Amino acid sequence: MTLSTPFCAKLGLTTPIIQAPMAGGPSSQELVAACSAAGALGSFGFAYTQPGDMKQQSAWVRAKTERPFGINLFTSPQPGAIDAVAQRGALEAVAGYYRELGLPAPEPVNAPYAPDLGAQLDAVAEIAPRVFTVHLSDLPEENLRKLKAKNILVGGSATCVAEARRLESLGFDFVVAQGGEAGGHRGSYLRDPYESLTGTLALVRLVARAVRLPVVAAGGIMDGAGIAAILALGAQAAQLGTAFIPCPESGAPQVHKDLLLKETEDNTRLTEKFSGKPARGLANRFMREMAAKNAPQLAFPAQNSVTGRLRQASAKAGKPDFIAMWAGQAAPLSRALPAAELIARLEAETIESIRKLKGMIHEA
Amino acid sequence: MTLSTPFCAKLGLTTPIIQAPMAGGPSSQELVAACSAAGALGSFGFAYTQPGDMKQQSAWVRAKTERPFGINLFTSPQPGAIDAVAQRGALEAVAGYYRELGLPAPEPVNAPYAPDLGAQLDAVAEIAPRVFTVHLSDLPEENLRKLKAKNILVGGSATCVAEARRLESLGFDFVVAQGGEAGGHRGSYLRDPYESLTGTLALVRLVARAVRLPVVAAGGIMDGAGIAAILALGAQAAQLGTAFIPCPESGAPQVHKDLLLKETEDNTRLTEKFSGKPARGLANRFMREMAAKNAPQLAFPAQNSVTGRLRQASAKAGKPDFIAMWAGQAAPLSRALPAAELIARLEAETIESIRKLKGMIHEA
Repeated sequence: MTLSTPFCAKLGLTTPIIQAPMAGGPSSQELVAACSAAGALGSFGFAYTQPGDMKQQSAWVRAKTERPFGINLFTSPQPGAIDAVAQRGALEAVAGYYRELGLPAPEPVNAPYAPDLGAQLDAVAEIAPRVFTVHLSDLPEENLRKLKAKNILVGGSATCVAEARRLESLGFDFVVAQGGEAGGHRGSYLRDPYESLTGTLALVRLVARAVRLPVVAAGGIMDGAGIAAILALGAQAAQLGTAFIPCPESGAPQVHKDLLLKETEDNTRLTEKFSGKPARGLANRFMREMAAKNAPQLAFPAQNSVTGRLRQASAKAGKPDFIAMWAGQAAPLSRALPAAELIARLEAETIESIRKLKGMIHEA
Repeated sequence: MTLSTPFCAKLGLTTPIIQAPMAGGPSSQELVAACSAAGALGSFGFAYTQPGDMKQQSAWVRAKTERPFGINLFTSPQPGAIDAVAQRGALEAVAGYYRELGLPAPEPVNAPYAPDLGAQLDAVAEIAPRVFTVHLSDLPEENLRKLKAKNILVGGSATCVAEARRLESLGFDFVVAQGGEAGGHRGSYLRDPYESLTGTLALVRLVARAVRLPVVAAGGIMDGAGIAAILALGAQAAQLGTAFIPCPESGAPQVHKDLLLKETEDNTRLTEKFSGKPARGLANRFMREMAAKNAPQLAFPAQNSVTGRLRQASAKAGKPDFIAMWAGQAAPLSRALPAAELIARLEAETIESIRKLKGMIHEA
């Protein structure tokens, strides 16, 4: 028994599952290759990756499997130079944590705060993955045309109906409806992200009824029951991030994996304090204290430079206090399985859920 | 073709649909009777209703149909006497709106702020509906035992795993998992309601895996695709509130019905300014302005007395500015149909959604 939707067939997947791109480590080349080889869509979160590394990691995956994979980039504009007062405030807010971890004091950060987007987009065109998605904004029509001409299917995130309609009008191939449950950065760019937290169940249905594009559902999906649910809502594939973090192939810090497996309740919250933009993760000391003192922060993605060494040192020390442990609201359903086994189980569970549903229908 | 789950069979329903109790008008006796007669579970939101009226309206429904119906009450404790300073602040915050509508100035409010809960519970025992649910808290074991002895199935709301487990340990018969999408009052009482906004997709799955009790899903469900989705997640019935507000039988103000039908985007937000506890509704001038000025408010449910005449006058004038227009995040999927027709369509859509899912499974 296999599961398939028209969109998945078009992508060349054998199961309607997308391993979500997770920038900053979790979506390692090992995870992407394992997911793609298993018939799902492995996806690189290359937002913070330089073009050279993008090409190298993509080649590594291609050496492991001929199956399709995806690449995701953040396309929001970068801030200009940041003034000294703002710098000082943001650095002072975290200085104590640097001291606590025995690190030298954090220093002012200078542009560029992330790799050059134009060069990254050129790398995507050169790599020509089967799928390319954008997050945090859309994409100029010229870039879109260029990538589509390379036979790349291009998708974008929508946290509301307006964003989905915009992607459709620009000529995108599909929409990733990111429900409020989703871990990581909120993709919102047309509305205030805090007023665009529609839950996955409601959002997927709203988007599926508002646009003709294929819809991928993201947010709170951790098992086959969740996949069956979003397929019922009209989505053609499920994008799971948190579910793949505990996989041995994922590059997330071990303490992040361990904590996901210990959760029993939704202990996630949104924070802007790691990167400058709101993202959902397991609540930890950094998130709580920075929120409590209403700490100043730099604009996205400059704040990443303010917190970067702190996060690395915290992960290295096996301490969860200062790591950005992105996670969705269904994190307590996490399990530690190799990616291929997880994908096989997800598919079997989805089929079983659909069978159970069928059993609820009776001849009158 | 009909749809059925073990829990619905136990309740005596012919379809796994519960019309959500909606205190303050929408769940009129006409709506409850129409929903129950159509094979769903009509439900009274009797939080603000005196025992005599509870009995009268229940008798009215029983004269129309022999089918089961439900009653819901708010079981959170009432505040004691409210001091003059707090009263003055809350009244001053709304005085301008009273003037604007040509109403006499609002006056200090005195306890009791709502009907006596003990007398309401006695009325429930006397009425002995098939189903009784509580919201905003649980129920002392003595009350629970007494009601269950009358062959009433007793359920409670859970917005997190801890609340679901508590209901199970107390001996409740079922759990209503209220996802973050849901319109009306957040049922949270063990956690901060603002940290207990897990989306329906994630929450239903978390709760279904944490307790053995039957789970009813609430929040963002507006059509058969949504019902199929929550059944896939392990729920045994869907509770829909917003979907029933535009019905001709509902007692919601006409302007509330009209605005629901005009929505194209999730324009809901949470507010405490109407009642004193957070509830989700269509954003309007009152909600925006009271939030912007961080207006003081009285504790729930005393704040209802501060805003009550304002809401009535606004509804009477056909103005949406000062009405509590409770609505869930999928409000744009609203449609104006008589309750029986809506229920028939919901069932047909659910069956159709399940058939489509079945069509995604292929022999390998």
